[in-house]
Amino acid sequence: MIPFELTILGSGSAKPTLRRKASAQILARGNSYFLIDCAEGTQLQLSALKISPVRISHIFISHLHGDHYFGLIGLINTLHLIGRTMPLHIFGPAQLSEIMYLQLEASETKLRYPLFFHDLQADSKNCILENDQIEVFSFPVLHRIPTWGFLFNEKIPKRNIKNEFIEVFHPDLNEIHAIKNGSDFIDKFGITHDNYEITYQHDCRSYAYCTDTAYFEDLIGYIKNVKVLYHEATFMANQTERAVATFHSTTLQAAEIAYKANVGKLIIGHFSSRYPTTESLLDEAKTIFSNTIAAEDGMKITL
Amino acid sequence: MIPFELTILGSGSAKPTLRRKASAQILARGNSYFLIDCAEGTQLQLSALKISPVRISHIFISHLHGDHYFGLIGLINTLHLIGRTMPLHIFGPAQLSEIMYLQLEASETKLRYPLFFHDLQADSKNCILENDQIEVFSFPVLHRIPTWGFLFNEKIPKRNIKNEFIEVFHPDLNEIHAIKNGSDFIDKFGITHDNYEITYQHDCRSYAYCTDTAYFEDLIGYIKNVKVLYHEATFMANQTERAVATFHSTTLQAAEIAYKANVGKLIIGHFSSRYPTTESLLDEAKTIFSNTIAAEDGMKITL
Repeated sequence: MIPFELTILGSGSAKPTLRRKASAQILARGNSYFLIDCAEGTQLQLSALKISPVRISHIFISHLHGDHYFGLIGLINTLHLIGRTMPLHIFGPAQLSEIMYLQLEASETKLRYPLFFHDLQADSKNCILENDQIEVFSFPVLHRIPTWGFLFNEKIPKRNIKNEFIEVFHPDLNEIHAIKNGSDFIDKFGITHDNYEITYQHDCRSYAYCTDTAYFEDLIGYIKNVKVLYHEATFMANQTERAVATFHSTTLQAAEIAYKANVGKLIIGHFSSRYPTTESLLDEAKTIFSNTIAAEDGMKITL
Repeated sequence: MIPFELTILGSGSAKPTLRRKASAQILARGNSYFLIDCAEGTQLQLSALKISPVRISHIFISHLHGDHYFGLIGLINTLHLIGRTMPLHIFGPAQLSEIMYLQLEASETKLRYPLFFHDLQADSKNCILENDQIEVFSFPVLHRIPTWGFLFNEKIPKRNIKNEFIEVFHPDLNEIHAIKNGSDFIDKFGITHDNYEITYQHDCRSYAYCTDTAYFEDLIGYIKNVKVLYHEATFMANQTERAVATFHSTTLQAAEIAYKANVGKLIIGHFSSRYPTTESLLDEAKTIFSNTIAAEDGMKITL
């Protein structure tokens, strides 16, 4: 299977600290590198983790609070300085391009690579990127300013023919092609072998990113059955009032979304700097959804 | 004497690296904290060096290349988040306020503290800040886009009365006041003691910051006799052509400005990331101006 891996670059909220940087992640599938959010210092986190920023083809910015995008202009600039020529696509709130271009104009920078901005639409779940390998969707979450979550779905690959079928029936190339495209197989005795009996399929892997958001039940439909969910848990449950007031979530609320959406694994993150360690946050989330882990900067998760 | 100290937060150029951050410095005189330039990651450098950003009252931004200001919006935002109420004054190119306000509006941030922008004027040397302790001047340097240098002069303090005079003549409070304000003293025999004979004065300390700039002889007049000069030396002398093309300086050019301006000490910095160490850069500069040091991140220099 093609490697599919998430790297947490920053798992803190509001302001970066020496212990925990603000939001940024790399989602890498084979040679496709996606950057999700880009807080101040993201380019140095990439350096520290030996991930070349040149590999990033698409960037997804959830919203325009600084702890999710203040590192973007620096990354755009550095890619220019190190001689990138490959196009860069950025998906984000409509005002993002204005903010970036204003700064590029102020420095009289003519980028050496094509830069494309794609404005996110606030209405509902939308497919914003699709190729033969993957589909990416954006959907609104519930925060103080317009904010989006993202869902990355591997496309259903063609089915593979089971080895034991090949050993017994020796299909020729035309027959193999037909079976991989879904045809049943009729053997020399005239017996029909159902396609689903003679083929198998790898599981499709998927990842969803939901931060910053208050508890928001619409998410359950948007991310139903996703394999891995990153959901913010800025606060512990005894700060529910503060979570509501600031449009953030608690550990229990993140876990409840994970449970109701039937996800495979939950990663909680975007922790308030008031929590020096994540043990208590994790314990609380696990009371509702046991397959939960707490994000740490530099952590890698295989999907 | 009131402590007067420079702390280098970043001494590299163009893009931040793990070894050397981009331009930012703290100039602290007593309780006055001035931040000069503010590259991406400056707030974390302040944390690492245990300097509270709340103490900063004035920020000076030399120009709108990203390696001199991409950390400013994050610092402004963090000061808001940690509850600053004291006003913050920012001196910089005219477009800086537009760039900052656009980002504050996008995040719907209403700052909890008053923020004042002061546009720098490109014509000549201007006094941009003055109180009873210090004067700050801006002056144009020579770069690809409008760029300013800064000069910080301690004000000439009132003269102090020599101890030996007090021991012999026992002046009363009125007489002390008059002498400190420059009066001569007439003793009981009618003999006049010249004010300059009976008083002394601390040296005035001063600091000048010149980066980014090509070799520019106008600087000599602007910073004549300054005690400590920070002048960029992005390149070694064998890259003079490249320095000219990019409006930067070499080690020899920085040292020549220091020599011709009769400065006390030269700090070279803003090094290209092509130089893993500064020994060769320093050796070269010292051939022209021996009292030269090379900036390192975290270095403190007593003025």
